[in-house]
Amino acid sequence: MRLRHKPFANDKLLEYKEFVVEKPEEFKGKWQERFEKEQPLHIEIGCGKGRFIIEMAKRFPEVNFVGIELQTSVIVSALEKQIEEQLPNLQLLQVNAKDLMDYFDDGEVDRIYLTFSDPWPKNRHEKRRLTYDSFLTVYKAILNNKGELHFKTDNQILFEYSLTSFSKFHAVLEEVYLDLHNSEIEDNIMTEYEEKFSKKGNRIYKSVITF
Amino acid sequence: MRLRHKPFANDKLLEYKEFVVEKPEEFKGKWQERFEKEQPLHIEIGCGKGRFIIEMAKRFPEVNFVGIELQTSVIVSALEKQIEEQLPNLQLLQVNAKDLMDYFDDGEVDRIYLTFSDPWPKNRHEKRRLTYDSFLTVYKAILNNKGELHFKTDNQILFEYSLTSFSKFHAVLEEVYLDLHNSEIEDNIMTEYEEKFSKKGNRIYKSVITF
Repeated sequence: MRLRHKPFANDKLLEYKEFVVEKPEEFKGKWQERFEKEQPLHIEIGCGKGRFIIEMAKRFPEVNFVGIELQTSVIVSALEKQIEEQLPNLQLLQVNAKDLMDYFDDGEVDRIYLTFSDPWPKNRHEKRRLTYDSFLTVYKAILNNKGELHFKTDNQILFEYSLTSFSKFHAVLEEVYLDLHNSEIEDNIMTEYEEKFSKKGNRIYKSVITF
Repeated sequence: MRLRHKPFANDKLLEYKEFVVEKPEEFKGKWQERFEKEQPLHIEIGCGKGRFIIEMAKRFPEVNFVGIELQTSVIVSALEKQIEEQLPNLQLLQVNAKDLMDYFDDGEVDRIYLTFSDPWPKNRHEKRRLTYDSFLTVYKAILNNKGELHFKTDNQILFEYSLTSFSKFHAVLEEVYLDLHNSEIEDNIMTEYEEKFSKKGNRIYKSVITF
């Protein structure tokens, strides 16, 4: 539906090649070339309209960020923010998460963020959840040995599912927060969705996972 | 304090040798001899006044139960219930959880219950928490290959801690419930404490772990 209001979304993505990677397979193993400085690489899978990744890139200039989002109509909003901000440490990438091993080399990534991923609540859609076994295989491959997955959601059932999924994959839950906004953790950057949801008094869940 | 009101607690435990095991080291590997029938062995560590284990033993006559509690003044209440009930599939054991490998053979136990264990919230008391690494070593040893640890608590911080502790031990979280009384799980037997706490609207957390 959103696409209708943004008929030129595709054109726009093609127009800003300095921010949106056109042929990502050419940068496999060479992502640092896309940035001004060689520094740790953090990616967000499903960055949506980009609020989280833009805030992160502003707050942590010593980190290079890649925001990944498949939907044209959504990623274009992230691009619009980046056109305004012109952040040298942020790139955008429009690909499917299941194909990330085609675009990132083994161990090339230092951190992966999953924030408020689609819960796909129906059992028959389990394979689409970004914490399903087959995605964990991808994350393990592209993360380096000390790399971390930072997973945040407001969806209790997705969180319950994901904890068992990580565990059955033999990943390690380094940290678990069952009520993030009432915990002692600092520097939590909220997405628009998180802010709205949290104001209603709902819980935000977070876990940090290593592979 | 409770002990004052029960000056004969110790005598009572010694008096009912058919329910309270006097020399448990003699039954290592032979627990089935303490019961009428040879059937799966489930133990509760920290059974307190025995409400949970008594209810379980009544509801599941096809399982043999051992309720374990160190405090004399508390286990005597469990004994009083058992004197009334005379359940053939329930034994009581007054020992320290850290010593369970002296009393149970490798793989002798089919299931361990931890229900509303003391959270020991101070960092310096971490080693006393029943989900601390050294206890997990004991559980892994005495549980058989298909054995499960069933862990239930109302304490959010203990649950967060325990999930990471299980995971770092490379145990597997088979099931996780972040709000047990609003989940679809059936047959939840409540302790007095759980009932009281749940009525206040607080959440009950549960996990099933394999080693």
